[in-house]
Amino acid sequence: MTPHIADFLAYCQGPASDIYFQRAADTLAAAALDPVVTMEYFGDRDGLLCGMGDAVDLLRRSLDGAGEVWALDDGNRIAAREVVMRVRAPYSRFGRLETAVLGTLASCSGWATAAREIVDAAGGRPVISFGARHVHPLVGPIMEQAAIVGGCAGCATPLGAERAGLAAPSGTMPHAMILVFGDTVRAALAFDAHMPDDVPRIVLVDTFKDEAEESLRVARAMGERLLGVRLDTPWERGRVTVELVREVRARLDLAGQRGVGIFVSGGLDAERVREFVAARAPVDSFGVGMAISAAPPVGFTADIKEVDGEPRTKRGRIPGLTDAPRLERMI
Amino acid sequence: MTPHIADFLAYCQGPASDIYFQRAADTLAAAALDPVVTMEYFGDRDGLLCGMGDAVDLLRRSLDGAGEVWALDDGNRIAAREVVMRVRAPYSRFGRLETAVLGTLASCSGWATAAREIVDAAGGRPVISFGARHVHPLVGPIMEQAAIVGGCAGCATPLGAERAGLAAPSGTMPHAMILVFGDTVRAALAFDAHMPDDVPRIVLVDTFKDEAEESLRVARAMGERLLGVRLDTPWERGRVTVELVREVRARLDLAGQRGVGIFVSGGLDAERVREFVAARAPVDSFGVGMAISAAPPVGFTADIKEVDGEPRTKRGRIPGLTDAPRLERMI
Amino acid sequence: MTPHIADFLAYCQGPASDIYFQRAADTLAAAALDPVVTMEYFGDRDGLLCGMGDAVDLLRRSLDGAGEVWALDDGNRIAAREVVMRVRAPYSRFGRLETAVLGTLASCSGWATAAREIVDAAGGRPVISFGARHVHPLVGPIMEQAAIVGGCAGCATPLGAERAGLAAPSGTMPHAMILVFGDTVRAALAFDAHMPDDVPRIVLVDTFKDEAEESLRVARAMGERLLGVRLDTPWERGRVTVELVREVRARLDLAGQRGVGIFVSGGLDAERVREFVAARAPVDSFGVGMAISAAPPVGFTADIKEVDGEPRTKRGRIPGLTDAPRLERMI
Amino acid sequence: MTPHIADFLAYCQGPASDIYFQRAADTLAAAALDPVVTMEYFGDRDGLLCGMGDAVDLLRRSLDGAGEVWALDDGNRIAAREVVMRVRAPYSRFGRLETAVLGTLASCSGWATAAREIVDAAGGRPVISFGARHVHPLVGPIMEQAAIVGGCAGCATPLGAERAGLAAPSGTMPHAMILVFGDTVRAALAFDAHMPDDVPRIVLVDTFKDEAEESLRVARAMGERLLGVRLDTPWERGRVTVELVREVRARLDLAGQRGVGIFVSGGLDAERVREFVAARAPVDSFGVGMAISAAPPVGFTADIKEVDGEPRTKRGRIPGLTDAPRLERMI
Amino acid sequence: MTPHIADFLAYCQGPASDIYFQRAADTLAAAALDPVVTMEYFGDRDGLLCGMGDAVDLLRRSLDGAGEVWALDDGNRIAAREVVMRVRAPYSRFGRLETAVLGTLASCSGWATAAREIVDAAGGRPVISFGARHVHPLVGPIMEQAAIVGGCAGCATPLGAERAGLAAPSGTMPHAMILVFGDTVRAALAFDAHMPDDVPRIVLVDTFKDEAEESLRVARAMGERLLGVRLDTPWERGRVTVELVREVRARLDLAGQRGVGIFVSGGLDAERVREFVAARAPVDSFGVGMAISAAPPVGFTADIKEVDGEPRTKRGRIPGLTDAPRLERMI
Amino acid sequence: MTPHIADFLAYCQGPASDIYFQRAADTLAAAALDPVVTMEYFGDRDGLLCGMGDAVDLLRRSLDGAGEVWALDDGNRIAAREVVMRVRAPYSRFGRLETAVLGTLASCSGWATAAREIVDAAGGRPVISFGARHVHPLVGPIMEQAAIVGGCAGCATPLGAERAGLAAPSGTMPHAMILVFGDTVRAALAFDAHMPDDVPRIVLVDTFKDEAEESLRVARAMGERLLGVRLDTPWERGRVTVELVREVRARLDLAGQRGVGIFVSGGLDAERVREFVAARAPVDSFGVGMAISAAPPVGFTADIKEVDGEPRTKRGRIPGLTDAPRLERMI
Repeated sequence: MTPHIADFLAYCQGPASDIYFQRAADTLAAAALDPVVTMEYFGDRDGLLCGMGDAVDLLRRSLDGAGEVWALDDGNRIAAREVVMRVRAPYSRFGRLETAVLGTLASCSGWATAAREIVDAAGGRPVISFGARHVHPLVGPIMEQAAIVGGCAGCATPLGAERAGLAAPSGTMPHAMILVFGDTVRAALAFDAHMPDDVPRIVLVDTFKDEAEESLRVARAMGERLLGVRLDTPWERGRVTVELVREVRARLDLAGQRGVGIFVSGGLDAERVREFVAARAPVDSFGVGMAISAAPPVGFTADIKEVDGEPRTKRGRIPGLTDAPRLERMI
Repeated sequence: MTPHIADFLAYCQGPASDIYFQRAADTLAAAALDPVVTMEYFGDRDGLLCGMGDAVDLLRRSLDGAGEVWALDDGNRIAAREVVMRVRAPYSRFGRLETAVLGTLASCSGWATAAREIVDAAGGRPVISFGARHVHPLVGPIMEQAAIVGGCAGCATPLGAERAGLAAPSGTMPHAMILVFGDTVRAALAFDAHMPDDVPRIVLVDTFKDEAEESLRVARAMGERLLGVRLDTPWERGRVTVELVREVRARLDLAGQRGVGIFVSGGLDAERVREFVAARAPVDSFGVGMAISAAPPVGFTADIKEVDGEPRTKRGRIPGLTDAPRLERMI
Repeated sequence: MTPHIADFLAYCQGPASDIYFQRAADTLAAAALDPVVTMEYFGDRDGLLCGMGDAVDLLRRSLDGAGEVWALDDGNRIAAREVVMRVRAPYSRFGRLETAVLGTLASCSGWATAAREIVDAAGGRPVISFGARHVHPLVGPIMEQAAIVGGCAGCATPLGAERAGLAAPSGTMPHAMILVFGDTVRAALAFDAHMPDDVPRIVLVDTFKDEAEESLRVARAMGERLLGVRLDTPWERGRVTVELVREVRARLDLAGQRGVGIFVSGGLDAERVREFVAARAPVDSFGVGMAISAAPPVGFTADIKEVDGEPRTKRGRIPGLTDAPRLERMI
Repeated sequence: MTPHIADFLAYCQGPASDIYFQRAADTLAAAALDPVVTMEYFGDRDGLLCGMGDAVDLLRRSLDGAGEVWALDDGNRIAAREVVMRVRAPYSRFGRLETAVLGTLASCSGWATAAREIVDAAGGRPVISFGARHVHPLVGPIMEQAAIVGGCAGCATPLGAERAGLAAPSGTMPHAMILVFGDTVRAALAFDAHMPDDVPRIVLVDTFKDEAEESLRVARAMGERLLGVRLDTPWERGRVTVELVREVRARLDLAGQRGVGIFVSGGLDAERVREFVAARAPVDSFGVGMAISAAPPVGFTADIKEVDGEPRTKRGRIPGLTDAPRLERMI
Repeated sequence: MTPHIADFLAYCQGPASDIYFQRAADTLAAAALDPVVTMEYFGDRDGLLCGMGDAVDLLRRSLDGAGEVWALDDGNRIAAREVVMRVRAPYSRFGRLETAVLGTLASCSGWATAAREIVDAAGGRPVISFGARHVHPLVGPIMEQAAIVGGCAGCATPLGAERAGLAAPSGTMPHAMILVFGDTVRAALAFDAHMPDDVPRIVLVDTFKDEAEESLRVARAMGERLLGVRLDTPWERGRVTVELVREVRARLDLAGQRGVGIFVSGGLDAERVREFVAARAPVDSFGVGMAISAAPPVGFTADIKEVDGEPRTKRGRIPGLTDAPRLERMI
Repeated sequence: MTPHIADFLAYCQGPASDIYFQRAADTLAAAALDPVVTMEYFGDRDGLLCGMGDAVDLLRRSLDGAGEVWALDDGNRIAAREVVMRVRAPYSRFGRLETAVLGTLASCSGWATAAREIVDAAGGRPVISFGARHVHPLVGPIMEQAAIVGGCAGCATPLGAERAGLAAPSGTMPHAMILVFGDTVRAALAFDAHMPDDVPRIVLVDTFKDEAEESLRVARAMGERLLGVRLDTPWERGRVTVELVREVRARLDLAGQRGVGIFVSGGLDAERVREFVAARAPVDSFGVGMAISAAPPVGFTADIKEVDGEPRTKRGRIPGLTDAPRLERMI
C-alpha cells in the first residue's frame, strides 16, 4: 500500500510536498536567488499545540545547521493567529517542507485540542481515546499520541501507546468476542481465565441483556476479580444516560458490589461528558471515539515576514517580525 | 519517524490495531472457538464511498482464501446505515483488522464525500484539491486520491497524483516565491523562462498589488504565454468575491486579454462555490483546501450478524443478513 | 348524564354555577325583566366538538319547553369562532347554566380535539386512551368518552367504556403485578391461567429485562396464546423507539412468532406517533396517556346577540344572528 | 370528599379505575400472592402539591388500618421527581386506587401550580379564580379549591368557596345582565337596589361604552356606594392595557372618585399580570380564568420500590426507598 | 422646482454642496484639467424611481447645452445597482451638483418606494399620505409629491397637492378641533355647516366615545350628508383592528347607514394594510403616515466610467459604460 | 431660521400645513370658539432632542405675545413619551403650525439621535457627518446641524457648517478628482499645490491601487505635508476592516511615516464603529454617511390636555398636565 516511508524527510520534501514548492525551488535556483527568509507559522483558532516535536525534527534534518528555529512546545495552549514557530534560514533549505510541517501541526493540534476539551469536561475522571478506528491506520497511532498530549489517560493501539510513552494500550473486550461466546458471563470467565494478570477485568455488559441485569450477573460470576463494567448502550436503546449509570451503581451497591467500577462509552462528546459530570453521575472513566479522532484540524499558515533582514510580506499581513515572547530557540 | 510500514498487513493487524481485538483473539483461541461469522459494515451518514479498494486488499491478504467478501466499489453514493461490505469467514482470519478497515473507509469516504459536494456545486468547472497541507503528510496523498474519487480534477502532490492515476500534480506558484523575487511580474517572467513547457503559466496576482492592477501588469508582460491568473485574496482584503472576479475579467477583456483564465482559491467551501456559480461569475476553475481535507470522517461500524450460519447480533441491531442487493462479490 | 349526581341539573344551576349568574337572576327578577334572548356559543380555536350531547340535555331539562336550541352534533370539526349552538329562550330559563354548559363543551372538546390529532397521526392503527390517571377521577370516564368521540378505539375504565358504548374497557397488565410476581413469564402465565377468555393476552415486557429478550421468553412460554407484547420502555432507557420496535419484530419473526402483535405506549404524543408511522415501524396499536387527558380545554364563550328580537350585543361583537347554516334544531 | 357521589371509594376502586388494576388483583388473588409492598409517588415537574388531602382520605378508607402512609401536605412546593407520598401495605389493599390517587394529585396540583405562579406575579394584589366555566362542572369547584390552595383570594362558585372554606364566592355581574337592561347605569342601580348589603358593588363597564366614559357615568350615578369597576375589554378592543387602567384611574381621580377600585379581567395570564405589576398600573385586583383552569395536570407516577421488605423496582428506577426526609406520617 | 428658493441652482452648487466638490473644482481648474467624463448613477436597492424630474432640471440649467443626459423617468421600478442616469459632459459643468442630484433621488425614491409597497398592499383601495408632520416642513410637500408618484391617491398639504397636480389636498378633521368643541356630534355639525360643499364630510369618531357608538351618533345626526367616518383608535385602545372595522360596518348597516364609508388611519404600515385586505375588512380607504414619510432614502451613487472617451473607473467597479437599454435621452 | 424662504412662518401656516388644520381653524372661527388650550408634545422613542430652537422660534413669531411656551433645549436626551414642550395659548394662535413644529422636531431629533449613538460608539475619536448626499438638498444642511448637535465634530456643506457654528466644513477629495487626474499621487500633489494652507491634506488612497501601497506612494511623495490618508474601500473589496487599518498603520510606521493619520469611511454605522474601537484599530477619525442622514425620524405627537383650564384630552390619554419638571419657560 504505501511503499514510501524508508526516508521520511525525502518523502516530505518530494512525493508528499505540493508540487508548486518544487517549481518555486527550481525557478529560484535558475534565477540564482536564495535569500535568508524569516517565516512565521500560526493557527486559525484557539487550541492546544501538538505535532511540533515532529515538525522541528523534520526541519532540523532539513536545515542541517544552516538556519535557526524558535517555537513553542507541544501541549501549549495557543491563541488564534498566535505565532507558534519562526524559522530563519535560506529559503532553499526548507521551502519544500511547508506541506509536511503545516500538515503535521494541523492534524495533531486538531486532535489534541478536541481531547483537551473533553478531558477538561471530565473534571478529573480518566478519559481513554478509543477512536483509532475512525481515522486512516497510517495516522491512527499518531492521533492517539496527540490525544495523550491533550490529556487523555490511555489509548487503544500498541503503537499509539508506545509513541505516547505509556506502559500499555487500553482495551476491554469487543462485542464480537461476546457474540462469538454467545453469553456475556461465559465470555467474561474465559477472558479472566486466559488473560495475563495485568489486563484489567472490565466487562462489556450491553450485548445480550439489559445493562443492569447483566452487570449483576457478571459481578456474581466473577466476584472480586471484576474491576469494572463497561456501558456502551447503542443509540437504539437510548445510549448511556445519567439515570442508567445511577441505576447500575445502585443495583451493584445493593448487591454488595461497591468495588466494581463503571466505565462509560458510546458516542460521547464534550457536551455529554459535561452532563454526566454536572449530574454527578457515578462514572469512573470515559471512553471517547470520534469526538477526538474526527476533530477537524487546526488550519496553520506560514508567512514570510522578512527577506534578507528586511520586513516584507504579502498584502493583508503586517511586514516584519510579530511580537512572540513565548517562542523558545529550538535549533 | 514511522519505522513500521514494511509490512502493512502486519502493521494493521498488530501495532495499529485496537488492543482488545488481540485480547479477544487470544481468549477465543484459548477457548478453542473460531466460528464462521458474517460481519456487515455500514456508515453513519449519507456519503460517497471511498477506501474500499484498500480495505478489500487488506482483507484479501488476511483471509488468504478462507472467506468471502461482498462490497460496493469506491465512488458509489451510499446512504446512512446502508450495508457497504459483508465478510463471511472464520473470525480469527479478520477480527484484528477491524480498526484498519473501518479507519480506511472512514477517512477516505469523509474526504470523497466533501469533494463530491463541492464538485457538484461547481457545476462543471474543474475543482483542484489543494489541502494536503492541512492533514498529516502520511495521509496527504491518500486524501488527494479520495478527492479525485469525489470528482476533483487535480491535486497538489506527486504521490497523490500518482495514486489517483493522474498524469501530473497541479500547482501554480506560492506567495513565498513572489515575495523572494519582490515583484510579481519579475517572478512570473522567471517562472516562464525556467519551467518546462507542460507546466501551465498561471500567475498568482494578489501578493503586492490590487488584483486587477496586477493582472493587467502580468498580462501585458507575458502576452499570449499567460494561461491564467490566480486570485487568492486574503480575508483581510475581503477574500475573492463575485465582484472582484467580474472586475478582473472586465479589465482583462478591455485590455484585449480575453484568453487569460481566472482561477479562484482561498477559503472556498461548497456554499461559496455555489454563490460564484449562481452569480455566473466568470471563474474558470476553483482551488479548494480545508473544505475537503478537513472534512470529518464518515463513522463506519462493523456488526456480526450471523455466527456459524445462525442469526445473532448485539442488542439494538437486527439479527441475520440485511437486505443489500447492490453488494458484489469481491473475494 | 352522569349516574353519580342525584340532581345534576340543580347542581349545575346552583352550587357549581358562577355566583354572579344567580345575582343577575335575582336582580332581573326584582326588576321584573325577563326578555327572550338569543345566545350564541363559539370556541376560541379549531377543534373537534364534544360535550354537546350533555349540554343540550341540561338545556332541555332547564328550558322545559320554553325555548329553542340549534346546535352541531358531537364529533363535528369546528373552526375558531364558529357558532356551535344557539339558544333562544327567556333569559331566566337558562342564564344560570352558562358555567356548566361552557365547561362541558370546553373540557370535552379539548380532549376530543387532542385525540383526533393523534388518531389522524396513527394512520389507521388503533389508539387506546390510557390517561384516566392524569385527571381527577370524577371526570376520568368523561375524558375517555371524549377520546372515543375523537376516534380512539378503546379506553381504560369500565365507566368510560360504558359511557362510550364500548363492549369492554381495554387493559393489559400493570408493572406492579409483574413486580409482585418477580418474573414476567411467571406473571404472564398466571394471568393467562386466571383471566376469562375474552381478555386479550398482551404482556408487558420491559419490567425486568431488555424488551427484545423478554418478548422472546414470553412468546416461547405462552405459544399461540400470546396475542401481543406491550413496549413501555421508561425514558431512562430511551423510551420506545422505531429501532426497538423493528428489532423486537425481527427477533419475534426469526423465532417464528409472526402472530405476536406489538403494542407501544409511554409518553406518546402526536409528533412521536407520526414518527413511528412515517418510519413504517411495525406497531400494531398505540396507547396514549397525557397527550389526550392533559390536553387544554377549548375556550368557549356565550354571547347574547338579540334581546326581544332586536339585535343587541356587547362592544366588540357583531349584533344580530351570525350566519351559521350548519346548525340543526335540537330542541 | 365530594358530596355528590354516594360511595366515592367504591367508585374509585371500580368503575373509575383502570381495568388492568382489577385484572391484576384477580390474577394475584388466584395466585394467592399478596405481599406487603412499598409504593412511592412523584410528579414529573416542579409545582405546588394539591389533592393530597383527598388522596390520603381515599387511602385511609381503603387501607382500613392495614397499612402505613407518609406524605407531604397540600400547599407544599415540590420538585420534579421528588417523592410526595409513600404507602406500605398489602398490595390488595390499595392497588386498584392508583388511577384515582394519581388523577386527584395530577389535576389539583396542576391547577394549584398555575395559580401560585399568577399569585406570585400579582405581588400581593388579590387574584380571584374565575375559570370554572372552562372545566367540566363536576370538577369546577375542585379546581377552585386548588386555586385557593395556590394562593387565590376568591373563586366563583358556591361549592368551590365552601370546599375552600371561604365565607362566600366572588362575583360582579355578567355582560348578559347589562345587555338585558340595555344600559350599564340602569343595570348598576338595579343591582345596587336589590342585592344584599354584603355583595360588593363592582360594576362591569365595558359593555356599551368606552370604559373610561362608562366608569365616570357609573361613579356619578352610584356615588359612594360604588366599590369598584371591572375592566374586561374584549380583545377586539385591545384587551385591558396598562394605559387603559392608568387613564381610568386618572379620570376617576379627576372626578373626585379616588375611592373607586379597579378590577381587571379578560385573558390574563402570569405574563400579563407581571406586566401590569412591573408597570405599577393602579390595579386593585385581578380576575383570572383559563390561565388557571386550563393549566395542564402535573403528571404523577407510582412506583413499587420494595416487595416484602426487599428492594425491588422496575428497570429504569432505583430499587429501595428513596431519601425523602420531608415526608410525614399520615396514616 | 421649489418656489421658495430664490436661486436653487446656485444653492445646490454652493452652500448645499459637499465642500470637497468645490475643492476638486478649484484643484482641477488650477491644473487646467477639464475632460469630458461619463458618470453613471445607481441605487443600492430595488425601488421606485423618484426625484429624477428635479434632478434633470438642475442638470439642464447647469450644463447649459454643454453635455448630454440619459435617464429613466420618475415612476419606473428600478433594480439594485441598475443605472438610472448617465451624464456625459465636461466635469466642471456638473461636478459640484453631485450632492444635490444624489440627495434628491435618494429622498424622493425612498418615499415613493415605501408608498408603492403600501399602495400595492391596499389592493385598489385609495391610500392617502398623511405623514407631512413627520418630516421637516421644507420637504413635507416634496415627500407628498413622491408619495403620489408611488401611487397614493391624495396628500395633506396644499403645496404637496399642487406639486403633485392634484385638485386639492385631503383632510378630515383633527382631534384638536373636536376637543375644543367638547363633543363629536357638535363638532361634526359645525364642520358641516361652515365648510364649502366640496370638502368631504368625513368625521373622526374616536375622540370621546367608543368608535362604534360615536359612529352611530354622528350618522344619526348628519343623515345623508355624512360621507364617512374615520377610525384612528390610539394604541392604548388597541389601534384599529379588523374586528373593529367589521363591527362598525355591521352596526352602521343595522342602523340603515350603508352609505357611510369607513376610513382607517393610525400607525398603518404595509403589513397591517395587508392584514386588513387579506381579512376582507370593509375599509374604504387608508390614511398612512410614518410608513411613508419616515421611509429610509434609497442610497444613490455616482461613478465616473469614462474620461475623455476612455473607460476608467475606480477600483471595485467595471470600467466603461454599463449596459442600460432602458435609459432615454433627456438632454 | 433658514435663509432661503422669504416668509417661513407663512409657509408653515399655509402651503406646508396639513389642510385639516386650516379647516378646523375656519370651522372654529365660524363657531366663534377660541379657547385657551394647553398642548403637550412628546416623542415615541428614546432619543436626543433637536429642532426645538427652530420650533420655538416659529411659535414665538406665531403667538406674538399671546401665549406661553415651556420646553427642553436641543441636545437633551429624552425618553419615549416624555413631554418635551408645552404650549398654552388660544388655539387659533398656533393650531396650524402643528405640521411644521412636529416635522421639525421629528427630522432633527432622528438625525441627532443617530449621530449620538455613533459618536458614543467612537469613544472620543472625531466623527464627521458626510451624508448630505443622501437627503434632499433643502434639508441637507439642516441634517448636518442636527448631526453636530448629536456630537459630530464636522460636516460637509458650507451651509451646514454655518448653521452649526463651525469655522469651516470638512472634506478631503472625491474619487472623481483622482479619476480625472488618472493617478493618486499626481492628484494629491496638485491638491497640495493649489489649496489654501488651512485645508487639511488628507488623501483618498483606494481609487487605483491597493490602499497600503498607495498610502506609501502618497506619503513618500508628499512628505511631512501629508496629514492623513482616507480609507474608503468599496464593498467589492471587502470595505475597510480592522486588519486593513492595522496593516496600513504598520506599513506607514515601517516607512517612518508615524505622523500620517488614518481616516476611515464607507458604509460605517454604530456597530461597525464599535468593532473598530473594541479592536483598538488605529483609526484617527471616522466619516459617517447614511447611518446618520438616513436615520428615521422620531415620531412626535401633540395632545391637547386642557381647554380653558379644564383637563380635557382624547380617549387613550390622561387629561390634565403631565408631570414634566425638566421643562423651562421659553416664551
